[in-house]
Amino acid sequence: MNTYGKNIKVTVFGQSHSKGIGVIIDGLPAGERIDFDRLNRFLKRRRPGNNELSSPRKEEDIPEFICGFVENRTCGAPVTGIIYNKDINSGDYEYLKNTPRPGHADYTAGIKYGEYYDYSGGGQFSGRLMAPLCIAGGICIQLLEKTGISVGARIYSIGDIVDNSEFNIPLKDMDLPVISPKKKQEMIQKITRVKEDGDSIGGIVEAVINNVPAGIGEPMFNGIENRISNIIFGIPAVKGIEFGAGFSVSGMRGSQCNDEFVMGKYGINIITNNCGGILGGITNGMPIVFRVAFKPTPSISKPQKTVNLVTGEEEIISVQGRHDPCIVPRAVPCVEAAAAIAVYDMLLDRRDI
Amino acid sequence: MNTYGKNIKVTVFGQSHSKGIGVIIDGLPAGERIDFDRLNRFLKRRRPGNNELSSPRKEEDIPEFICGFVENRTCGAPVTGIIYNKDINSGDYEYLKNTPRPGHADYTAGIKYGEYYDYSGGGQFSGRLMAPLCIAGGICIQLLEKTGISVGARIYSIGDIVDNSEFNIPLKDMDLPVISPKKKQEMIQKITRVKEDGDSIGGIVEAVINNVPAGIGEPMFNGIENRISNIIFGIPAVKGIEFGAGFSVSGMRGSQCNDEFVMGKYGINIITNNCGGILGGITNGMPIVFRVAFKPTPSISKPQKTVNLVTGEEEIISVQGRHDPCIVPRAVPCVEAAAAIAVYDMLLDRRDI
Amino acid sequence: MNTYGKNIKVTVFGQSHSKGIGVIIDGLPAGERIDFDRLNRFLKRRRPGNNELSSPRKEEDIPEFICGFVENRTCGAPVTGIIYNKDINSGDYEYLKNTPRPGHADYTAGIKYGEYYDYSGGGQFSGRLMAPLCIAGGICIQLLEKTGISVGARIYSIGDIVDNSEFNIPLKDMDLPVISPKKKQEMIQKITRVKEDGDSIGGIVEAVINNVPAGIGEPMFNGIENRISNIIFGIPAVKGIEFGAGFSVSGMRGSQCNDEFVMGKYGINIITNNCGGILGGITNGMPIVFRVAFKPTPSISKPQKTVNLVTGEEEIISVQGRHDPCIVPRAVPCVEAAAAIAVYDMLLDRRDI
Amino acid sequence: MNTYGKNIKVTVFGQSHSKGIGVIIDGLPAGERIDFDRLNRFLKRRRPGNNELSSPRKEEDIPEFICGFVENRTCGAPVTGIIYNKDINSGDYEYLKNTPRPGHADYTAGIKYGEYYDYSGGGQFSGRLMAPLCIAGGICIQLLEKTGISVGARIYSIGDIVDNSEFNIPLKDMDLPVISPKKKQEMIQKITRVKEDGDSIGGIVEAVINNVPAGIGEPMFNGIENRISNIIFGIPAVKGIEFGAGFSVSGMRGSQCNDEFVMGKYGINIITNNCGGILGGITNGMPIVFRVAFKPTPSISKPQKTVNLVTGEEEIISVQGRHDPCIVPRAVPCVEAAAAIAVYDMLLDRRDI
Repeated sequence: MNTYGKNIKVTVFGQSHSKGIGVIIDGLPAGERIDFDRLNRFLKRRRPGNNELSSPRKEEDIPEFICGFVENRTCGAPVTGIIYNKDINSGDYEYLKNTPRPGHADYTAGIKYGEYYDYSGGGQFSGRLMAPLCIAGGICIQLLEKTGISVGARIYSIGDIVDNSEFNIPLKDMDLPVISPKKKQEMIQKITRVKEDGDSIGGIVEAVINNVPAGIGEPMFNGIENRISNIIFGIPAVKGIEFGAGFSVSGMRGSQCNDEFVMGKYGINIITNNCGGILGGITNGMPIVFRVAFKPTPSISKPQKTVNLVTGEEEIISVQGRHDPCIVPRAVPCVEAAAAIAVYDMLLDRRDI
Repeated sequence: MNTYGKNIKVTVFGQSHSKGIGVIIDGLPAGERIDFDRLNRFLKRRRPGNNELSSPRKEEDIPEFICGFVENRTCGAPVTGIIYNKDINSGDYEYLKNTPRPGHADYTAGIKYGEYYDYSGGGQFSGRLMAPLCIAGGICIQLLEKTGISVGARIYSIGDIVDNSEFNIPLKDMDLPVISPKKKQEMIQKITRVKEDGDSIGGIVEAVINNVPAGIGEPMFNGIENRISNIIFGIPAVKGIEFGAGFSVSGMRGSQCNDEFVMGKYGINIITNNCGGILGGITNGMPIVFRVAFKPTPSISKPQKTVNLVTGEEEIISVQGRHDPCIVPRAVPCVEAAAAIAVYDMLLDRRDI
Repeated sequence: MNTYGKNIKVTVFGQSHSKGIGVIIDGLPAGERIDFDRLNRFLKRRRPGNNELSSPRKEEDIPEFICGFVENRTCGAPVTGIIYNKDINSGDYEYLKNTPRPGHADYTAGIKYGEYYDYSGGGQFSGRLMAPLCIAGGICIQLLEKTGISVGARIYSIGDIVDNSEFNIPLKDMDLPVISPKKKQEMIQKITRVKEDGDSIGGIVEAVINNVPAGIGEPMFNGIENRISNIIFGIPAVKGIEFGAGFSVSGMRGSQCNDEFVMGKYGINIITNNCGGILGGITNGMPIVFRVAFKPTPSISKPQKTVNLVTGEEEIISVQGRHDPCIVPRAVPCVEAAAAIAVYDMLLDRRDI
Repeated sequence: MNTYGKNIKVTVFGQSHSKGIGVIIDGLPAGERIDFDRLNRFLKRRRPGNNELSSPRKEEDIPEFICGFVENRTCGAPVTGIIYNKDINSGDYEYLKNTPRPGHADYTAGIKYGEYYDYSGGGQFSGRLMAPLCIAGGICIQLLEKTGISVGARIYSIGDIVDNSEFNIPLKDMDLPVISPKKKQEMIQKITRVKEDGDSIGGIVEAVINNVPAGIGEPMFNGIENRISNIIFGIPAVKGIEFGAGFSVSGMRGSQCNDEFVMGKYGINIITNNCGGILGGITNGMPIVFRVAFKPTPSISKPQKTVNLVTGEEEIISVQGRHDPCIVPRAVPCVEAAAAIAVYDMLLDRRDI
């Protein structure tokens, strides 16, 4: 349910306004040293309140590890990291039980869990649960780097502003990871305008994982695409995923789409990467590339129609609270985290005796 | 690995040219009557050789059930259906070991499994393995219908020919399930032309599942999108999936994208379906809608560059054999089958004590 | 790895001397009210320092729940309970790396995890990890009771002192749950004597689960015995498990062993219970009965031979520290907890649509 | 449900009187050569009709492999082996629906699956399903041998005839694998006598796995004992399992039970093996030893009481048909098969990057 992985098991827990949120990572090898300062810097990229464009909720998001390490090294036991929630809004969320926000999980969670569901702040459906995912992902990023594998993501589009610059420079420490400075300014303006309107806006994040060796993955239901999409759809607001050339393959001929082999100086080369580094569910040694579509944050102050589930009357709802006008900038490290967990897990696939 | 499902376990097995291929469906309730004639008609939609546009391989694809039924009713034991391969090409596939076909799994499977991989006809990576998936899916379609749930899919595009007609008429028995007759003709011409060129072409399939009750699914890694994408990426040649408005949500504002609630004659109504019937991983009672991008068949007779892995020399490969110029028509029932398996499995999620 | 369950997922984490230990229970239904005072009384039965016969380590073992509840009721999100370790012995465990204790996991864990394994207090192999299991089990006991199912265990033997009294009185609040007062005294004397010798002693715990409905369970690898034994062997020091008449069935004839059916006042009755309530992996409505063999605590002060792994020299080891001379009394609630988790999980097996 | 394993997935299917029974083994490495003659000899040990002491049902039990091999070598795709049932008794099993056999799964399966359960010959609960398990086990035995690991089992007792000879000679090709010739004769006499009485008798099988390297396994719920017991309880009629000194550890002191370390000529030695080769769920390099208790075959011609579920009247049942008076001799290869599958699966546990 809230657990991902085949070789490592990443379990995320908590609610937006519970005492704490956290993650267990079970199955990490013993003896791996983690740089916690660097992990905290990674988590800082996702936390709210970093700038004008994000939710003003104040959370430091520094995890406390209660087990799994001996002197900063993994010891083979499950790693458990907890973030105690600090800025819990004492406001009344009771009304959400009765008047579900359009586009939000209020309605579906209410049907599934009934009146005892934790409506406060979105409960377990809150984007806040991505903080624990980023703990696990930040650790996996460090472990992957030891094998030479790097994971990066960037903003590909916000609304109709598309930055299709080639993705080949490191963006990790950028506040807003957009490659083209011009497009970046346009995106900032777009988000600002949308925020002023009491509205929100969607976008696309692109991820690239470099240096994954060829031959990783499995056929059928356990291929690389299956495993990456399985974790990516765990990020709230994702409505689509595509690998390599993605949906545009549907317009291609085989002679265009097939990635040909040529002989290079150091061995076999693959010229194009329409397959996004994956054939038959198995890596071919090229970068793994995928794009993820995020819908606009459903919580907006602009008036929307809803129905009061108790009275059966239509009502107009204007969602107040501390919401992001565009979740995409904060989603970038989440996509990196999810990708890192998926790829690290794959790498641990058993090798034969 | 080759098993899908949480409540039922669907395991697909076989290779393109092995004695047989088949499927086990474990966990079906006892007492369910299956209409085998209808199942065979469903399988016929996928089998090769139905028309000029598909591979001429001759296979009847009528499964033999060796266990799991007593007098056409499930008995609670695993159902095992086997199709014995008949038209096995005795041709020499040995060259594929050395000169991998661009865009195909030859190269990656060779790295993963080594020289003992079954190269013949694509081995376990062959689209032929979709016949057993369709056995399981065809059974699930029948079981779903008893609960009022219907599963349908249609061709949304072939190459640049897009049919965005509304999808509200039954297409199941159509040879080529396209809604607009005009677009259908254009698609047939497109495939024919591509075939004459010794090339292939991609496309998009759209699926709609009607009457799934609200409240099915789970948060985080076990939501409806996660589970559907997990099985859909098991279909060869899929490079992307999107739900509801899909990638276009990235260009929307929240006020456009959110599906508002209104009061209808018989209760609460949801006007639009940008979420594709899923919020927070859980169904909202609207149709589940998703689209799947298929790449062009990688096997084409048009010359392509490859490398001989033994000599290290570049070679030109022209793939012969019995290949589909466009896999999309035969992929339609596969998407239906996969969707039906995923949805049936979800419906079996436990209800609380 | 550290997760048990099919319908609920119970994950135990922590090391003997880490900051904390804890448990996640994922998949509990929403709306279940838990009596935390009662849960704490249950945990008290297992905690050390209750009496002269157990380890003097001082731990209150009162869990803090950081998520999963809204006002004492489950909310559908994972329940996470943490116990912060208090009485952490600052002593040097470094020597255990080099001179493994006979009968303990030091040696095997060292081979598996290498030098980074947390040797302190037994690390993740410590019986201390049973506290989190008891949190999950104590919750399941309460949930089971709402359905009328009770779980109880008792000491069947300590060393050669066997109490084969019929097990039909409630023992839950007893300090040392032995039915025969005479045997209880003999057991206390036995443990006291063993303790004075710097030695330890084993024993057998018997569990009975009443009122489980017939028809629960599955054939083959997912039967009741499989699932109970799978969790029971997670309790340290267990070396055997038997159901119903257990090993003594090996000496029986079918005509003795088969449990006959007769007609009772209120329906069909089963006279004997040699099968321990389970046939073909499925419950028959009779009490589920099983016995578990515990080996003597391996940590004893009596001198034993070991080898110094660095020098390759034989050494004599006398294990100091705070160890139980007999783990059986504190194992009783652990067996109850494990049984309750297994049975509750089974009850949640899906019912068909 | 009917699937076992973490790294390989062994799925058993079929019913006693279905067209066929079989097994899928998914996840075997590619390139492994299997000796099918040897596999058939292994299967012959389990098949019925080998001698006077077993059921006269005539089955050759020679599997047909429909996929997974290329020229007698595994190819990385799932291996599927099928045995077509030949000697299907056309007799009427209808009466079993109404008058459940004491000690058999008729009653519990009927409650679980209802009237559509396949009662014929015991359906999916039949010992006949052990033939497919032996296919998988026989393959694993061959794969294990390549790594130097051997798996053997012997009859430890039949009824009250106990052969506690040391278990150090190869028994594999013996018809009745008993070490002491004298005890063997007594066991034959015992079974013969019981058969003449229209009754049946239980027994104990002991298994030894040699040369498993130290450090295999995991703590908590995924230890060696957990995994072995999980598959062993999949064998019909098993009511108990114990490792090493087993239940007798309950009578021992720590100073007796702990296996001390000494220094030998070639490195560290462990003198005794009370732990059965497993500490903390992880192998210590000593032989893995366990014993399994089998109940007497429930199907006996001796009259027993049952209840007619339709009339509610008590009846006397005398089970006719082709049943073994003692299942233990045919259970020996099943225990070997199960042990081999479990141990091979463990060996495939991932090694760290």
